[in-house]
Amino acid sequence: MTDFQAVDQYLQDHLQESINELSRLVAQPSVSAQNWGLEECAGLVGEMLAQRGFRVEIVPTGGAPVVYAEKAGRGPGTLLFYNHYDVQPAEPLELWDNPPFVPVVKDGVLYGRGVSDDKGHITSRLFAIDALQAVYGELPCTVKFVIEGEEETSSVHLSDFVRANQERLRADACVWEFGGVDFRGVPMQYLGLRGICYVELSVETANQDVHSGLGGSIFPNAAWRLVWALNSLKDADENILIPGFYDDVRQPTPREIELMSELPDASQEYRHRYGVDHFLGGIQGGLELRLAEVYRPTCTICGLTSGYQGPGSKTVLPARASAKVDFRLVPNQSPERVLELLRAHLDAQGFTDVQITNLGGDAPALTDPDDPFVQLVVDASAGVYDQQMQIVPLTGGSGPNYVFKQYLDLPIVTAGVSHPGSQAQAPNANMLLDLYLKGAKHIARILQAFGQG
Amino acid sequence: MTDFQAVDQYLQDHLQESINELSRLVAQPSVSAQNWGLEECAGLVGEMLAQRGFRVEIVPTGGAPVVYAEKAGRGPGTLLFYNHYDVQPAEPLELWDNPPFVPVVKDGVLYGRGVSDDKGHITSRLFAIDALQAVYGELPCTVKFVIEGEEETSSVHLSDFVRANQERLRADACVWEFGGVDFRGVPMQYLGLRGICYVELSVETANQDVHSGLGGSIFPNAAWRLVWALNSLKDADENILIPGFYDDVRQPTPREIELMSELPDASQEYRHRYGVDHFLGGIQGGLELRLAEVYRPTCTICGLTSGYQGPGSKTVLPARASAKVDFRLVPNQSPERVLELLRAHLDAQGFTDVQITNLGGDAPALTDPDDPFVQLVVDASAGVYDQQMQIVPLTGGSGPNYVFKQYLDLPIVTAGVSHPGSQAQAPNANMLLDLYLKGAKHIARILQAFGQG
Repeated sequence: MTDFQAVDQYLQDHLQESINELSRLVAQPSVSAQNWGLEECAGLVGEMLAQRGFRVEIVPTGGAPVVYAEKAGRGPGTLLFYNHYDVQPAEPLELWDNPPFVPVVKDGVLYGRGVSDDKGHITSRLFAIDALQAVYGELPCTVKFVIEGEEETSSVHLSDFVRANQERLRADACVWEFGGVDFRGVPMQYLGLRGICYVELSVETANQDVHSGLGGSIFPNAAWRLVWALNSLKDADENILIPGFYDDVRQPTPREIELMSELPDASQEYRHRYGVDHFLGGIQGGLELRLAEVYRPTCTICGLTSGYQGPGSKTVLPARASAKVDFRLVPNQSPERVLELLRAHLDAQGFTDVQITNLGGDAPALTDPDDPFVQLVVDASAGVYDQQMQIVPLTGGSGPNYVFKQYLDLPIVTAGVSHPGSQAQAPNANMLLDLYLKGAKHIARILQAFGQG
Repeated sequence: MTDFQAVDQYLQDHLQESINELSRLVAQPSVSAQNWGLEECAGLVGEMLAQRGFRVEIVPTGGAPVVYAEKAGRGPGTLLFYNHYDVQPAEPLELWDNPPFVPVVKDGVLYGRGVSDDKGHITSRLFAIDALQAVYGELPCTVKFVIEGEEETSSVHLSDFVRANQERLRADACVWEFGGVDFRGVPMQYLGLRGICYVELSVETANQDVHSGLGGSIFPNAAWRLVWALNSLKDADENILIPGFYDDVRQPTPREIELMSELPDASQEYRHRYGVDHFLGGIQGGLELRLAEVYRPTCTICGLTSGYQGPGSKTVLPARASAKVDFRLVPNQSPERVLELLRAHLDAQGFTDVQITNLGGDAPALTDPDDPFVQLVVDASAGVYDQQMQIVPLTGGSGPNYVFKQYLDLPIVTAGVSHPGSQAQAPNANMLLDLYLKGAKHIARILQAFGQG
């Protein structure tokens, strides 16, 4: 019996116990957007870590506390896990088949708010640690956990926490909060996140809406001001018109292009799932679509609001108008720089009346696909999944990985239990028990290999 | 005792009775937007006319019925009154000091939904008829009434009604549903209404909103399509860019400019009431503002809606976006032509994906300020008001006056009981009893002078 066999056997035998623990965690609501149950959930997570012999501290942040935990292991290396115990709001409740905070298993699937995002990731890692400690009596390396409670609300206090705790967080590598398989069932290694700069643009031109018959010819109109200001940001060929916006953009490297070229064509999946009839810039699919999807920085209108929006007509000239706009940033752009450029551009175009409210930003961050730790994680997946893990050098989303990059300077990998139908932020959020077991096996192998390295 | 004295004395003596009748009419809700009480109110209005010896018909239209009434008089001429018995919704109810359908008099002011718009105009005209019939035993001319129940919902069946009843509606002149004094207390003669073309522009680019991290670089965005399409309609210097839009615009005549130049400066009033800090095109006020206000056709965004509009941020790429847009039209533009030009323009600009929904249109219509009937009405006001009635050749609003112009070809004047604080469409709608009495006196003089002409 190899080491893997003993560990795998343990995981197989104790799966139900771990699902029970996960169910207990899911049953504790922890909705950061609604400030609901956060302290309680942090306490519960801390208790679970303490039961495994971790030294645990619940660290106040000004918002939801961070659960910090560490435990020394056999080898000299230190592995850091980043997770979060908060979840998205469960609304709309009527679309759930079962109450969101009453976890239910059906046909090999666990349903409940947060089962995969991110509580299943937390307990699958604890489960792997249980197996290793049961088989070997100790951890193969030092393990640290940072489990925050504000990931679903832009991680507003995380950067301060990591900076203030830079020394005790020191580690050699980090496993990120998410991970899993793609629509083909192939395990994916997501190595980078784009940055984001999210703003609200707003205009106010009068103290009240005015009858359009009176004001239409002579009064400034907030909705028109907003439309013209937005139009100045991007042309219909998708060129972002803010001077300097593209200055810091670096093109994908040959190695990144090589990795992207190994990914499957996503065009049919996107056309089918979202009902789009074409892609921007005349792109048909394949590598071209994969590259455009992540290496092209964006300026996306996420929302527009002004004046009358009900049925039929109302002849009103709006006094107020606003737009939510996000910029997805690629290496080496920064949200601070984009904010500066945006203000300068609007002013230069005569839109001094357009107010910018900064609603949050993340810098882009990448891990080198040829970092030895990445290879370790890919190799560790071999005995777990039927198919070879594929490396995605950059994904379209954003997150606080740059904070760990900036202050701890370590490689960050993904390894997890999600699948594309997890409905992480939607009703009937779910997790496949088979992938949960595989995820735990993978984590155990990563820890073991890391301890030997 | 002159004729005027006897009529005025009657009105003075019977004011309370007329206010009681108006209160009874106000107490009958008749909200066309909510299809509430329309048949009942039509019946009540018909009853009031029948009591005065009018031949009354409640004419079905497919929507709210039209109350049509006529009564022959001494002279050969026929005067037509256009009114409406429907009112705006009373909501928001919590902002009323008294229940909207329980009329209350306080300090010479009658409060209630519809007291001036338009039920006070109806009863003030009946009141004038009472006085004339009491003093002379007959009407000085033939009088006809068209009192519709859909004025607050775009008069959708009025055009068909007038066309179908063209012969029996024949008249020599028409008194419109509204009228009154301006902010200085000067009686105003509004002789024209602009046209309107109200559309909704909408775009759909996918079957659901997409995460902006996924779709931002590659998926079409409905909000951006809408912004670009809107931007193609008008530039930041207020030039409407639809080819042909200005072709049918006629400039104000020297006579119209002369009349507009006699109006008071409105710039301080507008700056103060609406909190606007400037007027479009660098206009400061005076005649320039008066002319721009009505003789410049408009393209007004009345509303914008797309994607996420709540607090904070949501990273979503909207599948749908729409805008409400109204065009105010000057002589000799037409809403049908503007619709055609708009479609052709959007297509030519590549916005075949932008759908246009026609939400209603009115043509502009004018009455010649030198029509003898206008002079008659201005002269008739002399003994009623302290100040000379002023003629406004065109106002900024819109309405169905063109229907009467088109099918009956008659001059249309205004004479009424409103003041700028009437709050016609807002809570605490009100009417000054003093102006009510004056309005009735004016109507009596118009009828008398018309019968003698």
